[in-house]
Amino acid sequence: MSPPAAVDVDSGSASATGPLTVDAIPALRAKSAKIPLGVAPATHSDLFKSPYCYTKPHAKRWDDVFSIEAKARKTSTLKGAAQFLKNPGLISLGGGLPSPEYFPFDELSVKVPTPPAFSPEESHKSGSVITAKKGDSRDGTSCYDLEVALNYGQATGSPQLLRFVTEHTELIHNPPYSDWQCCLTPGSTFAWDAVLRILCNRGDYIMMEEYTFSSAKETALPLGLKVAGVKMDEQGLLPEALDEILTNWDEATRGGAKPRVLYTIPTGQNPTGATQGVERRKAVYKVAQKHDIIIVEDEPYYFLQMQPYTGADGQPVPPPANHADFIRSLVPSYLSLDVDGRVCRIESFSKVLTPGSRAGWLVAPEQFIERYSRHSETTAQNPSGISQILLFKLLDEHWGHSGYLDWLINLRMQYTGRRDALVIACEKHLPGEIASWVAPDAGMFHWIGIDWQKHPGLAAGKTRDQIEEQIFLSAVDSKVLVSRGSWFTASESSGEGKMFFRATFAAASSENIEEAIRRLGEALRVQFGL
Amino acid sequence: MSPPAAVDVDSGSASATGPLTVDAIPALRAKSAKIPLGVAPATHSDLFKSPYCYTKPHAKRWDDVFSIEAKARKTSTLKGAAQFLKNPGLISLGGGLPSPEYFPFDELSVKVPTPPAFSPEESHKSGSVITAKKGDSRDGTSCYDLEVALNYGQATGSPQLLRFVTEHTELIHNPPYSDWQCCLTPGSTFAWDAVLRILCNRGDYIMMEEYTFSSAKETALPLGLKVAGVKMDEQGLLPEALDEILTNWDEATRGGAKPRVLYTIPTGQNPTGATQGVERRKAVYKVAQKHDIIIVEDEPYYFLQMQPYTGADGQPVPPPANHADFIRSLVPSYLSLDVDGRVCRIESFSKVLTPGSRAGWLVAPEQFIERYSRHSETTAQNPSGISQILLFKLLDEHWGHSGYLDWLINLRMQYTGRRDALVIACEKHLPGEIASWVAPDAGMFHWIGIDWQKHPGLAAGKTRDQIEEQIFLSAVDSKVLVSRGSWFTASESSGEGKMFFRATFAAASSENIEEAIRRLGEALRVQFGL
Repeated sequence: MSPPAAVDVDSGSASATGPLTVDAIPALRAKSAKIPLGVAPATHSDLFKSPYCYTKPHAKRWDDVFSIEAKARKTSTLKGAAQFLKNPGLISLGGGLPSPEYFPFDELSVKVPTPPAFSPEESHKSGSVITAKKGDSRDGTSCYDLEVALNYGQATGSPQLLRFVTEHTELIHNPPYSDWQCCLTPGSTFAWDAVLRILCNRGDYIMMEEYTFSSAKETALPLGLKVAGVKMDEQGLLPEALDEILTNWDEATRGGAKPRVLYTIPTGQNPTGATQGVERRKAVYKVAQKHDIIIVEDEPYYFLQMQPYTGADGQPVPPPANHADFIRSLVPSYLSLDVDGRVCRIESFSKVLTPGSRAGWLVAPEQFIERYSRHSETTAQNPSGISQILLFKLLDEHWGHSGYLDWLINLRMQYTGRRDALVIACEKHLPGEIASWVAPDAGMFHWIGIDWQKHPGLAAGKTRDQIEEQIFLSAVDSKVLVSRGSWFTASESSGEGKMFFRATFAAASSENIEEAIRRLGEALRVQFGL
Repeated sequence: MSPPAAVDVDSGSASATGPLTVDAIPALRAKSAKIPLGVAPATHSDLFKSPYCYTKPHAKRWDDVFSIEAKARKTSTLKGAAQFLKNPGLISLGGGLPSPEYFPFDELSVKVPTPPAFSPEESHKSGSVITAKKGDSRDGTSCYDLEVALNYGQATGSPQLLRFVTEHTELIHNPPYSDWQCCLTPGSTFAWDAVLRILCNRGDYIMMEEYTFSSAKETALPLGLKVAGVKMDEQGLLPEALDEILTNWDEATRGGAKPRVLYTIPTGQNPTGATQGVERRKAVYKVAQKHDIIIVEDEPYYFLQMQPYTGADGQPVPPPANHADFIRSLVPSYLSLDVDGRVCRIESFSKVLTPGSRAGWLVAPEQFIERYSRHSETTAQNPSGISQILLFKLLDEHWGHSGYLDWLINLRMQYTGRRDALVIACEKHLPGEIASWVAPDAGMFHWIGIDWQKHPGLAAGKTRDQIEEQIFLSAVDSKVLVSRGSWFTASESSGEGKMFFRATFAAASSENIEEAIRRLGEALRVQFGL
């Protein structure tokens, strides 16, 4: 990787000497390479990073962690021929791209909120209608037109949306090494499957939090992978537990080599709601360095970090005063601590804009992103062009970075209200004798511990699993659905002796949340004979 | 599989005794189960198939072809809990679905052509604007609203779009066994990768046409698969060659077990443009039965079947008189001949509507579709909901099946014009002494054979590959890009002694097509000293 020609690393200009800010982006764009307007152009994040990035050291090499499959991938034969397309005057009868005159979509419009009028009601009444047409780039209306969005694209995604997420990544995380890159993904579920196929061979172990997103585990198991669960506390993953597993790894007992990949949800973890503090992250990173581990941070809930919980009668904490304040309030990501280039960050719009777009992105060292792009070329190719142009129109052309940060601050306050409603309902309605919790700092989930050893079923010879099922079904009978903690265990030894239920405050209304928790409390009282 | 309650198989009503027609669809819908209006509902094609389907025999079992990975897939833990959601009055704090009030898209509109005014100009001037809003299903405006489309979905896709493709599949292909199903895919490239991972283990062989879509081969190779190329003629795949390979398969010499999977592009094959006639397909199917082979038919060009080529001075053949005529004019698919249920059909909107939607579908026996859905759940999940709702609005609500068939007929005539322009240009400008071709019946590609043994480089000791490269670069120097035939060889022994170039008539204008072929003719004359 080398900086693009347009970036003058040695200029000593302001932008080369400090982290990127929202205000500096117009100047950065003015100096950067122009967005290519044609169909499926080659692109990469280096075109859009600030000169400051290039003052940093390079990432470590990942050669020794790539899977057999990833090592075998070659550049697409047909994409290789694209080099000739730039010859002036050339007529191509080469590629099999359909002609845009046969795309039966002449114009695409979407009504979206304008900051700060973000509520559904305001959006509906006074939202702005933004439009993409087929000829927008020909007449200079936009650098991304419908003709291009409706055609094939590159695995990296369109340069238009890639530029936005690259700048956003630099604004928020400012990675401490130089050759990081972004690549769009058709959603985090796809990205995690791809990461596993790129980094692991059948029979390998990976490490996950002892309670983890069950789908993430179910992605790994059919690939022939095994999971070692890492113990957690209220801040999630315990670095000492991670170190202990790796230091004492015995290949023969485990039936597999010492793992190289750690999967973690550091912020608002699913299912526990735990958020790793900055010191915790630094300690985990140190263990990763000691054992040369790749950290995969799956971060859908990063921007669902909330205001501190101040209790039913407490004074609410005022929202962040401005963008800089907001960014400072966010717990540092692993990416932002990644001096070695050993972090692969899976980013998502699902919890902050819409899951239906099936568009997210990855951030990782160039060497990994290159392998991911090869993988993507022969699988999902790229996220829907229709999703991409709508996200671009909203994020880049309508909101800009500033408006997007406003949206995220708004979301923070909304989720704070929901979290508060749930926690206050728990304080009011759950029996404190057997139920305990910590108010979550981020995410959508509240993790309720149950002192199941006080359950009368125990004396009657029932197992923990049977009691958990009985409580779960009794809650369902009381017309409230929560998730059983055992659904989320990373391995058979995970969560021994403990019992939890997961409740989410993402979807139900405040009134429904309180009613649901009231019903849960009732069910618990009946179950425990309280 | 059993027919849904709403379908009365034994009624002896007209719809149970004959193939589905466009006109019968409203009555079928009236009898079928209602489209569920909620977020991410479970769905499957059986809800939408006509009673006639259930009068047919069941598909063969596929148990012995599933890969280690496919066999290991289990039902998602969290999706299992969804069964409780239908309990009346239940409040769910279970799933992690975000609340639609935080999706910043209030309304989505698209301007599309209304049959028969399909041209870009007509579409632009007088197209209809169709709109999806957040509350459409609440106020009865539509069975598919933006709130649902913007949220998570099931791997099968939304029931709204799945219904349309299921009906379309029955209309066009009328599979001769009962338990076929459709499942949406995020594009054919993804689907082919998934099919391979579901049917093959590392070290397995698959069979492909000796010249094949290079990306399809490049999808297979990194998975540790090997390719046996099957010889072709002007109608594509040769059944005798297929039978010979399988009959004489020697595991030791080949270094792999006898293959079970045949990949074919039967219509407008990429790169050769060849279309298998119906007798050819029947013969290939018989060989597949003899050796118990799964046929994967990749059919992006099926609806790019064109009018017969009648030459520069010939009388054009009039377009199909009506829908029935059009459907009859189409060469039968493998799916339509599939009495055993051994065909997996990969369907695409990329060449007939837009590649940018990254949405297509699969048709295969229920047993396979079930494994595919499990695969999809932990990879791409489902195509973009934004793409899905736009396709639904256009295909189902605006055009209906009738309007879509009109669109496809229009496309047939458009491509006929393009193909004619290319073939007539070849007749006019290419040196007949060394160049030969057959006018393609379908697709986007024209395959030009070159009698390279007449090239002066041969006497000078050059190899076929070197001469191919020299001709290619000389064409590039003359400002025309075509693709080298050797880029598409399935295996090293493919296409021995022959030389081809592929030209596409999909993208360039008629004038540019003629100019490009003129340049190619010039380059060939210089190369061969004519």
